[in-house]
Amino acid sequence: MSEFGRVGVAVRNIRRAEVHTVEALGRYGVATIHEAQGRTGLLRPYMRPIYPGATVWGTAVTVLAQPGDNWMLHVAAEMVDPGDVVVVALTTDNDDGMFGELLATSYLAQGGRGLVIDAGVRDVRALSEMKFPVWSRAVNARGTVKATLGAVNVPVVCAGMLVEPGDVVVADDDGVVIVPKDRAAEVAVAAEARERKEEATRRRLAEGELGLDIYGMRDALAKAGLMYPDAEK
Amino acid sequence: MSEFGRVGVAVRNIRRAEVHTVEALGRYGVATIHEAQGRTGLLRPYMRPIYPGATVWGTAVTVLAQPGDNWMLHVAAEMVDPGDVVVVALTTDNDDGMFGELLATSYLAQGGRGLVIDAGVRDVRALSEMKFPVWSRAVNARGTVKATLGAVNVPVVCAGMLVEPGDVVVADDDGVVIVPKDRAAEVAVAAEARERKEEATRRRLAEGELGLDIYGMRDALAKAGLMYPDAEK
Amino acid sequence: MSEFGRVGVAVRNIRRAEVHTVEALGRYGVATIHEAQGRTGLLRPYMRPIYPGATVWGTAVTVLAQPGDNWMLHVAAEMVDPGDVVVVALTTDNDDGMFGELLATSYLAQGGRGLVIDAGVRDVRALSEMKFPVWSRAVNARGTVKATLGAVNVPVVCAGMLVEPGDVVVADDDGVVIVPKDRAAEVAVAAEARERKEEATRRRLAEGELGLDIYGMRDALAKAGLMYPDAEK
Amino acid sequence: MSEFGRVGVAVRNIRRAEVHTVEALGRYGVATIHEAQGRTGLLRPYMRPIYPGATVWGTAVTVLAQPGDNWMLHVAAEMVDPGDVVVVALTTDNDDGMFGELLATSYLAQGGRGLVIDAGVRDVRALSEMKFPVWSRAVNARGTVKATLGAVNVPVVCAGMLVEPGDVVVADDDGVVIVPKDRAAEVAVAAEARERKEEATRRRLAEGELGLDIYGMRDALAKAGLMYPDAEK
Amino acid sequence: MSEFGRVGVAVRNIRRAEVHTVEALGRYGVATIHEAQGRTGLLRPYMRPIYPGATVWGTAVTVLAQPGDNWMLHVAAEMVDPGDVVVVALTTDNDDGMFGELLATSYLAQGGRGLVIDAGVRDVRALSEMKFPVWSRAVNARGTVKATLGAVNVPVVCAGMLVEPGDVVVADDDGVVIVPKDRAAEVAVAAEARERKEEATRRRLAEGELGLDIYGMRDALAKAGLMYPDAEK
Amino acid sequence: MSEFGRVGVAVRNIRRAEVHTVEALGRYGVATIHEAQGRTGLLRPYMRPIYPGATVWGTAVTVLAQPGDNWMLHVAAEMVDPGDVVVVALTTDNDDGMFGELLATSYLAQGGRGLVIDAGVRDVRALSEMKFPVWSRAVNARGTVKATLGAVNVPVVCAGMLVEPGDVVVADDDGVVIVPKDRAAEVAVAAEARERKEEATRRRLAEGELGLDIYGMRDALAKAGLMYPDAEK
Repeated sequence: MSEFGRVGVAVRNIRRAEVHTVEALGRYGVATIHEAQGRTGLLRPYMRPIYPGATVWGTAVTVLAQPGDNWMLHVAAEMVDPGDVVVVALTTDNDDGMFGELLATSYLAQGGRGLVIDAGVRDVRALSEMKFPVWSRAVNARGTVKATLGAVNVPVVCAGMLVEPGDVVVADDDGVVIVPKDRAAEVAVAAEARERKEEATRRRLAEGELGLDIYGMRDALAKAGLMYPDAEK
Repeated sequence: MSEFGRVGVAVRNIRRAEVHTVEALGRYGVATIHEAQGRTGLLRPYMRPIYPGATVWGTAVTVLAQPGDNWMLHVAAEMVDPGDVVVVALTTDNDDGMFGELLATSYLAQGGRGLVIDAGVRDVRALSEMKFPVWSRAVNARGTVKATLGAVNVPVVCAGMLVEPGDVVVADDDGVVIVPKDRAAEVAVAAEARERKEEATRRRLAEGELGLDIYGMRDALAKAGLMYPDAEK
Repeated sequence: MSEFGRVGVAVRNIRRAEVHTVEALGRYGVATIHEAQGRTGLLRPYMRPIYPGATVWGTAVTVLAQPGDNWMLHVAAEMVDPGDVVVVALTTDNDDGMFGELLATSYLAQGGRGLVIDAGVRDVRALSEMKFPVWSRAVNARGTVKATLGAVNVPVVCAGMLVEPGDVVVADDDGVVIVPKDRAAEVAVAAEARERKEEATRRRLAEGELGLDIYGMRDALAKAGLMYPDAEK
Repeated sequence: MSEFGRVGVAVRNIRRAEVHTVEALGRYGVATIHEAQGRTGLLRPYMRPIYPGATVWGTAVTVLAQPGDNWMLHVAAEMVDPGDVVVVALTTDNDDGMFGELLATSYLAQGGRGLVIDAGVRDVRALSEMKFPVWSRAVNARGTVKATLGAVNVPVVCAGMLVEPGDVVVADDDGVVIVPKDRAAEVAVAAEARERKEEATRRRLAEGELGLDIYGMRDALAKAGLMYPDAEK
Repeated sequence: MSEFGRVGVAVRNIRRAEVHTVEALGRYGVATIHEAQGRTGLLRPYMRPIYPGATVWGTAVTVLAQPGDNWMLHVAAEMVDPGDVVVVALTTDNDDGMFGELLATSYLAQGGRGLVIDAGVRDVRALSEMKFPVWSRAVNARGTVKATLGAVNVPVVCAGMLVEPGDVVVADDDGVVIVPKDRAAEVAVAAEARERKEEATRRRLAEGELGLDIYGMRDALAKAGLMYPDAEK
Repeated sequence: MSEFGRVGVAVRNIRRAEVHTVEALGRYGVATIHEAQGRTGLLRPYMRPIYPGATVWGTAVTVLAQPGDNWMLHVAAEMVDPGDVVVVALTTDNDDGMFGELLATSYLAQGGRGLVIDAGVRDVRALSEMKFPVWSRAVNARGTVKATLGAVNVPVVCAGMLVEPGDVVVADDDGVVIVPKDRAAEVAVAAEARERKEEATRRRLAEGELGLDIYGMRDALAKAGLMYPDAEK
């Protein structure tokens, strides 16, 4: 029913990651979650927030859209549940402004929390004032038609990363990370452990201790052959 | 007298769009104007404002500059009338910083309102503090020479769009749109109509009504063959 | 001892530009310094600050890093003296997030003032709140390994510009400029002269005088053949 | 066992598409197969063959490699069966030359037919003389280390497309297309039907009949409002 | 009737440059024609031929196409006269494969000589074998729909250059140049003069004379301040 | 006398690498030399030959050119000695066609062997027929002026790599590598050793032996934790 990249379907009643797990992941930054799940899950870094400080976490409603055509983003509005983040992939590279203030108003009214779109977005001042967070590859006023079917809630590749409907999406100034719904609980635990450990390290570094010593890197550097010559004067 | 892309001339006494039409267009955003004139007129989306919230509207003084050379931007200063926006095209791709605080001071003193340049700009902090709005393809401290003629007030292609001297330029966070001077009045009317209609739609969407119903898309989607399967669990 | 691009060494006791010269250069913007040293020294304009208004000046500790590997950034922490700016070049194009909050904490504790990195950076919100200035080619949450030697304090090419250890680095919203340590004093003098001259020009332009007259360009334009036809109506 | 993007594993005994289906698909071009499976399956068009006329079809052995590191390409050599095409995805954007004449010699000796790599390749003259077909994002002499684990035979995203081990890969001058192994038979049938139909159309077009008539487009164009004015003279 | 960028029209009976002028221009290379008309008329250099040695000259039939949609290329087929070259501009950046063997067969049957398209092209092996010359921004197997109107024979901007229906198009390995139909005769004369002059220069250079002397550059270089120091040994 | 990036000078009587060393290096490919000197010396991979099979080796005459200006390429002609390769860096990113058939004729007449240029080149068909090898970032018919001084025979950064006058340049289908003149002899020895070793490895791989065994990688892979699960069926 939900084949990769299949067009012509809008899949209902998807299974979503559990709410408390999503909320647990929402406490951590994108960089922390990416590390906690073994350095996987990141979208390509060309995906940027439309305003500084934008942050979102939620469950993915996926959209596969055609170039220059935002029909499926309207279909998706009906499938947004409270807590969802809409994730839009394209069938080909396209920067058109597929999303603006009106769709944001609609998604918000359905309980949507934000948007991740591998295309363009417009009305960015209004979106910023509404505090509707968006990560996109471009800001572009160019409008789109509504003529060709794509899909909603099929697995897609968005900005280089596989996203399945119901997966967890976390995004902040550093970018966007996807956590597969079946790994979400374990990743939340690992993220917490990582954050605790980093806090301790931060204190030691602030006091002037070196990472070389805290992480015990000196032996490995010597073994790899690092030399410390003096500069010629 | 004002042949496309011709170099070696600075054309005086260009015909400009009428002031009240320019001011009427200045009430609308770039996305609205672009839609109102049939989805035409946009510059490529790589043209970005140097600070968030930058906005400008006015009549175009066009410049055709050579790579690494801002001589013609000085010639243009003499041709700026109150209400003008200078639009700079290049004869080839070039990111050098052709414009900075001094030229902005000069353009302002002549009544200029802003700059759209398919090249680089520098002194961006000073320009932001002066609230001198600029849309450019790059921020770049690299300076330029004054050695080779280009042109002022000939038709040019700037960031993929034809611009004629005297055309209306409107720019905001979403990008830059050009309205040909002879279509300006009709586009202003269409923009107002569009905005009024969007306001009504926005209210309905905010109350939870779906675009699928407001725009009557369900029949077309069914006809195109969209299916609504349930997800496999 | 400090051969261009040599890997496997971390050079100690580099000679740095003199403190009072560095501080003198820190009074000028990047565009001014670039002009004052004959339009040289700029890094490519894809190097952007992570927050508006970021500014730094100091002496370069150079790093040559491998793609996906930030080991040498930890080695560099030990070599940072108060007043240094770390400048990271890569052996190949790579956007991974090699630097974040922890390394910034460490560099700050050693007296480091900022970072210039021809790769990615992460934790940008935390870095912005710490006011730790960074210029990078990308923001990217992707983490790195610590497996392969690069170098510290060898001459490198960073974003298209040669940087030698101890050179002066000045960076602001306009980009990043390098002043070779042996030219620093002379460039500081030239920068001051330039700034004074520009101040006088700015006043005249603000009063409506034209650059064409202030700079005496009219003869050269006429000689080059510039014509001033009237527009066809 | 073969989770998406998982590192640290080299999966044995993958299930491959059936030989006769692969060979059937090998009779069609990439454009035909892409159309036959509903305009899906294409890698991004930056993937280019290293010599004109390169063609390959076979079953995918997938590799997930780290930037600047080709260790996993050596691990993959052991997993290549006759008829395989190695498909290399990267954990991040990287153009290094991960593959050259020696690995090609090894893959050929194991029965490998070609390579699709979202990174760089080197020794392209030797590879061209060997007629070893490669599609890559770059030609780059830069060598790599062997230091960090990736994976072999896990699902990957290569140049924007999901590839599962054992899927069918077809590549020619037009690019690279993936056919999921479970759809391969049906796609081969559709490709044949398409090709037959196109042959008939080609003959009619060559005799001067218009696509407008053959495809019956005139009504739809009229309905969409296309007008045929005469040019102003 | 033929407004810039207007959609929804296919303009008949355009005025074309005169045949003997087109044929005269066809004797010169793109670089020569570009120089002969004052260094104008070139399309951006990302437009590349699909096979080495591709050459074409003719009169432009212009097309404005929507992203992912090649409907207008079919409409254009009916408007191609013997000696025409179809020039396709897009309303937005798009790399889809809008043109292939079937359309080439049709254009050839109508007397078309080649294609210049600011999008993608497919079936490049077949096109190369047919010797149907194409300049494009990409090779891409991705197919397109036929759903949204664009235009035929309106002025367009293609790869940064204004093209009017009936203008002369000349293309070779160096790129694509447009000669406005009303300047074609004068440019052909200038091109011939330039070529004759270059032939004489070539002979002198081949005999070892220097451009510095042939073009008399030494005085200007000295005046600009060029110094000839010896290298330090 | 030959300061990095200094403009306004054309340095005479540079010291070049010794002829027999240059010829020795000319026997090896770019990839081999790059490895033999510790994976350094490569220009960025966007530098591509203008025809397949282009090869050159020789000593560098360096040029620093301004955007849109090829004056210094004419100055360089006088400084070319038999066996030289001209290496052109730009003060900023620029793709203009700075070099064509006439300059190639002149360089050849002086004994020049080829060109490496971080800008554009034109007349590529003529250059290919002359077998004059060029590596460039673009093919572009756009011509240039002769108005602003750059430099000849100063150290430059070309495509990301430092090049000093007299250094060895080797280029082939894989790209361009620079060998500093004082390391040339040692690198030639290392290249020969590497080639001999590779020849032996190639034979073993061709017979079906695996790199895993030849290079003894299995222990390191196991230590790094690589697992070999079976696929789920």
